[in-house]
Amino acid sequence: MQIDIKQPVLAKNDRLAEELRQLFAEKHVYALDLLASPGAGKTSTILATIDALRDEFNIAVIEGDIASNVDAKKISAQGIPAVQINTGGACHLESSMLKKAVEALDLDRLDLIIIENVGNLVCPTDFDLGENAKVMILSVPEGDDKPLKYPGIFQVSQAVILNKIDTLPVFDFEVERFEEALNQLNPTAPLFKISATSGLGVDEWASWLAEKIRSC
Amino acid sequence: MQIDIKQPVLAKNDRLAEELRQLFAEKHVYALDLLASPGAGKTSTILATIDALRDEFNIAVIEGDIASNVDAKKISAQGIPAVQINTGGACHLESSMLKKAVEALDLDRLDLIIIENVGNLVCPTDFDLGENAKVMILSVPEGDDKPLKYPGIFQVSQAVILNKIDTLPVFDFEVERFEEALNQLNPTAPLFKISATSGLGVDEWASWLAEKIRSC
Repeated sequence: MQIDIKQPVLAKNDRLAEELRQLFAEKHVYALDLLASPGAGKTSTILATIDALRDEFNIAVIEGDIASNVDAKKISAQGIPAVQINTGGACHLESSMLKKAVEALDLDRLDLIIIENVGNLVCPTDFDLGENAKVMILSVPEGDDKPLKYPGIFQVSQAVILNKIDTLPVFDFEVERFEEALNQLNPTAPLFKISATSGLGVDEWASWLAEKIRSC
Repeated sequence: MQIDIKQPVLAKNDRLAEELRQLFAEKHVYALDLLASPGAGKTSTILATIDALRDEFNIAVIEGDIASNVDAKKISAQGIPAVQINTGGACHLESSMLKKAVEALDLDRLDLIIIENVGNLVCPTDFDLGENAKVMILSVPEGDDKPLKYPGIFQVSQAVILNKIDTLPVFDFEVERFEEALNQLNPTAPLFKISATSGLGVDEWASWLAEKIRSC
């Protein structure tokens, strides 16, 4: 019964996602869909990425949240256009929501749109937003067993960011065990180990992303 | 359209939840539905709770995960009956899943069933499992702004646990700001500040729970 319900919703989503994908390609805008648990550091990673790339690229951010606009405010405070989507309860963004947000942006002036999805390791994996890449962030305090428990999100991600590596001494997180599990699920995804708040490791991640933006 | 889809699913879920609620009441078993983000420390909190209460009560655990049985193994290693539910992609437990798991337990011998829901701050809030209480765990590394972003889960919880308080010096988490936001959303829910791995603060939480079990 669940399948009957899900399919038509996904089909409609995928049609709109395809339209968005074409629009992004036409305008040479790279769209990055950022996925993570609540509190893994999505907004901090976006701020660090903006810092690293704003001299070369024009960036905008679309913030997906159940409620509130605290994240959009943090982005706007950096002089970067930010559009807030409140899903009103939905656990993920859908392409219909994204379409409205994109319409509020001037795509001719942009090189990169970073989409901060709702904090959730499950639901957002099923929804194509027409993005160029889904990238996920795991943070050290969440534990190294997450690939075993939430395999789907690790499989759909083109790259994986391990955030809060400055807290490795405080938590029982074995980086090697995590890398092995990740490698089994997704052998081609690069892993970037960063501390978004201190800037540690951000350069490597930003270089990877810059390369993608330039060639899109 | 989303409403048309959701209502029949919830109606069926609520019917089964009501059956479970009656069963738990008949058997004088207290059912606790534990909600949190991935990596907030649900399993560690369950282990600490078992430690504190196993002398007085007979306990079983039902583990909800997308995939894997690593959590159920940790519980079984403590000599506590554990049933693993793999949701195969679903972002929350439903009462139909719980019913099957409950059938694998001997309710006549139990006082407390702890249900570890799928790691998610959004989807599990909508699904009644017939439990006596939903209790949520937030962990310090997730940040003090979570009540603003995920208000629903704070509102449905009968009590809130703030875990990993031993890491407060490492993170920018203002306990007072968090308590204010929580108080606005849910003025009656007690807040228990704990470190599940070190045992700090667990006694107070366990006493609250013990009182509930005794009077059910």
